[in-house]
Amino acid sequence: MARVVVDVMPKPEILDPQGQAALGAAGRLGFTGITEIRQGKHFEIEVDDTVDDATLEKIAEGFLANPVIEQWTIRRVDA
Amino acid sequence: MARVVVDVMPKPEILDPQGQAALGAAGRLGFTGITEIRQGKHFEIEVDDTVDDATLEKIAEGFLANPVIEQWTIRRVDA
Repeated sequence: MARVVVDVMPKPEILDPQGQAALGAAGRLGFTGITEIRQGKHFEIEVDDTVDDATLEKIAEGFLANPVIEQWTIRRVDA
Repeated sequence: MARVVVDVMPKPEILDPQGQAALGAAGRLGFTGITEIRQGKHFEIEVDDTVDDATLEKIAEGFLANPVIEQWTIRRVDA
């Protein structure tokens, strides 16, 4: 068994209204020094040893992210 | 300037319908060996050097996460 983390973020050129909302909230609540917030998705996946990196890439591209507007990173972490 | 990553996840005892939907999709699409998917939020934040760790904790607890149902990790990464 292994744990895999997939982080999915909007591509840099894509507007990110959720991140902008969080940034606006920071300002209204008096937090200074924050220049940018972007929001994406964080997946924690438990896989067995039959799942290779190519399969993980297919999973991320196929249904965790939307490749048209999102980019992603995949990393294995200690289970 | 520094980049901070905040990952927000539903607490283990909280149902995670988004993760369950992704897990179901994996099965329907023929991916085997995946035993669990949980989905949370991933924030990438740009802050200047005046923002200390205590402030980051307040930001995460205050409006990035819902402390009743979610847990979070904060880490600084290379900008």
